[in-house]
Amino acid sequence: MSEAFRIGIAGLGTVGAGVVKILQQNGAMIAERAGRQIEIVTVSARGKKDRGVDLSKYKWADKPESLADEKLDAVIELMGGAEGTARTLVTKSLENKKHVVTANKALLANHGFELASIAEKNGVNLMYEASVAGCVPIIRSLRAGFTSNRITGVYGILNGTCNYILTQMRVSGRNFDDVLKEAQAKGYAEADPAADVEGMDAGHKTAILAAIAYGVKPNFKGVKLKGITKLTDVDIKFAGKLGYKIKLLGISRDHGGKIVQSVEPCLVPADDPLGSIEDVYNAVFVEGDFFETPLLTGRGAGEGPTASAVVADIVDLARGVRTPTFGIPASKLKDMKAMDLGETQSKFYMRITVLDKPGVIADISAILRDQNISIESVLQEGRDPGQPVNVVMTTHEARRSNISESCRQIAKLDSTIGEPCLLRVVVL
Amino acid sequence: MSEAFRIGIAGLGTVGAGVVKILQQNGAMIAERAGRQIEIVTVSARGKKDRGVDLSKYKWADKPESLADEKLDAVIELMGGAEGTARTLVTKSLENKKHVVTANKALLANHGFELASIAEKNGVNLMYEASVAGCVPIIRSLRAGFTSNRITGVYGILNGTCNYILTQMRVSGRNFDDVLKEAQAKGYAEADPAADVEGMDAGHKTAILAAIAYGVKPNFKGVKLKGITKLTDVDIKFAGKLGYKIKLLGISRDHGGKIVQSVEPCLVPADDPLGSIEDVYNAVFVEGDFFETPLLTGRGAGEGPTASAVVADIVDLARGVRTPTFGIPASKLKDMKAMDLGETQSKFYMRITVLDKPGVIADISAILRDQNISIESVLQEGRDPGQPVNVVMTTHEARRSNISESCRQIAKLDSTIGEPCLLRVVVL
Repeated sequence: MSEAFRIGIAGLGTVGAGVVKILQQNGAMIAERAGRQIEIVTVSARGKKDRGVDLSKYKWADKPESLADEKLDAVIELMGGAEGTARTLVTKSLENKKHVVTANKALLANHGFELASIAEKNGVNLMYEASVAGCVPIIRSLRAGFTSNRITGVYGILNGTCNYILTQMRVSGRNFDDVLKEAQAKGYAEADPAADVEGMDAGHKTAILAAIAYGVKPNFKGVKLKGITKLTDVDIKFAGKLGYKIKLLGISRDHGGKIVQSVEPCLVPADDPLGSIEDVYNAVFVEGDFFETPLLTGRGAGEGPTASAVVADIVDLARGVRTPTFGIPASKLKDMKAMDLGETQSKFYMRITVLDKPGVIADISAILRDQNISIESVLQEGRDPGQPVNVVMTTHEARRSNISESCRQIAKLDSTIGEPCLLRVVVL
Repeated sequence: MSEAFRIGIAGLGTVGAGVVKILQQNGAMIAERAGRQIEIVTVSARGKKDRGVDLSKYKWADKPESLADEKLDAVIELMGGAEGTARTLVTKSLENKKHVVTANKALLANHGFELASIAEKNGVNLMYEASVAGCVPIIRSLRAGFTSNRITGVYGILNGTCNYILTQMRVSGRNFDDVLKEAQAKGYAEADPAADVEGMDAGHKTAILAAIAYGVKPNFKGVKLKGITKLTDVDIKFAGKLGYKIKLLGISRDHGGKIVQSVEPCLVPADDPLGSIEDVYNAVFVEGDFFETPLLTGRGAGEGPTASAVVADIVDLARGVRTPTFGIPASKLKDMKAMDLGETQSKFYMRITVLDKPGVIADISAILRDQNISIESVLQEGRDPGQPVNVVMTTHEARRSNISESCRQIAKLDSTIGEPCLLRVVVL
């Protein structure tokens, strides 16, 4: 067996402690698979305290950045954050010809191209399986498993917190705020939940997946973000009646070289594989020119799954596997030609609050007709002459800019109240 | 860019022709991902005929075995069969220090250890992603993505033909023979369907997955096989009433070092991810000590998906990725300590044809009680005093040998007709 593969770990939160635990518990088996021992040399974290694992055999570094200067084969960055210490440590480590393994999606989504270039220049690898969908091997699959196909689309339930909230809203009929509070109490949502529920987290992951899928520089700023904070139980119920569930999807598609990236709540068929992914589970669906619908799913967060992904990356490095950061040499990554969401085609769900009186549906239908939108179904909830009632429509494939324009016009009708609630319908 | 990676392809059926098509259509993109050109040098197949791809630029070999002696980096074996030409070609190619990529599950399941040893001795790689579940990157995930976990169980819908037949039986209410004929007409089942419907094909795949998961020599003979030929529409309907679907599952589990392997029709909850896998789709679910439930699914067969997996293996080889055949050095693969299926615990579904008269359920319940089996639910279909009716029971976790013994005793009761239909219930 070769020399031990020496690593330093910066960050000993849930994931960092999990990595230590796995390497301690499964060390012998992992050494057999890696062809060499994985040796934790140094650890670093904010303050010494009990983290549920024995750290007594490892060197302690007060400053995580100092790991970049130690005699290590790889630095494992598990602090998080797109800037600051994490960015400095990863940059310096790569410059000092150390491999890096990270779970830091914000860092990859914002500075992935720069870091990939540094890694390449220094002949080392940047690994980040744990940054997207926990133990689901989607990065590895896109970088190595799906290399034969021109990828045309990637669809994912990428944020476990949102999926948990949406599942609970549907199952219990409660509203967003109630369920969010419960999720926070259970540790499924942060005290400041914005990054999750506003879609940023899923946006980071969408940008990372798009970079590998299409061979482009990660472009987080190009992801159109819409979170789940404004979703109502009313729409979740109507979706259910129509045979759908609402899921927050991170989507990217290649339209002949122009890429569109978005995060938004979408209706998916309840009995499709994507519809069966509930609670904190994640799932990613990939579309290629020669295969159909590989879907990878699993628990997207938590100590075990995320730490499992980190350790698998370490094993790959110890084995000597060398794959370009985003699947092709950094120098060949293209700038993303972005496509406006308005130019895309999709099916839509629209809920309109109307005053229940004759002619309303006719007015709405006329607007849709003039925008070249064909209606698939219409559902009116009860009857209450002269009072506000919900009318729900689903459309056939329509141009997004047209449906947006229709919504603006419908909102101006005398017989409608407020803006329609518009959601995309995704049938894979 | 490095020198081209030279390959020879033996077998130009659906998959072989698909490989040629992918390399022709996506060649430039694949070269970028692989870091070098993939060059088809020689092809070989049974007789020259139109295969829908242009073969004019490649050298033709009348005898596939001759590829083992050519100046090639890798030989791609797509002829199939556990013995004969395929085995000879793969063996000779590895001995002559050529990498091998194959989709041949029968070969791997029966001679995998021997071939892995030859590959290792000669410093080359044996790749077989396409042998299990088409484009689903399960081999790659077990060999590289899940290396951090002690794998405790692998459950899969591994045979597309059977899954198609079971889906159609459920949806249409037709019987096995009818649906099989339709599947044959559509090309989803072979003229001789035995390998699929008797469970051998899923058995080969189960043995391959178990070898990587548990670090053991593949042991196809140790897989307990039960196909779907005796399944009736009656049981499919009862399963549906209870909220289940029937799926043919290939299952292996590690019980503290003793491995149990089986292929059998099982009830799975209809709204679980595994229950949502329909028609020709495959899915594999992996259980480890630190992660939960990664599930990989996708189309399990057909030109595109299978050829995609073959080409991804070629790209890995061209990149220089070197992973032991079954995840650890062949010399370290252990002989499988088999566990008898009778020793395992599971929930069960049992349908008993009884004469509708007082006391029958009491007799059956007494037998189950004496075998230490606890009943979860009882369902009797209609009432027809003195006539045969179906009684369906589900049990809590019970020892398999006890439930088998119960069935034997129940069959002997005066008030029952024939053997009970016993099916395992799998709740993940």
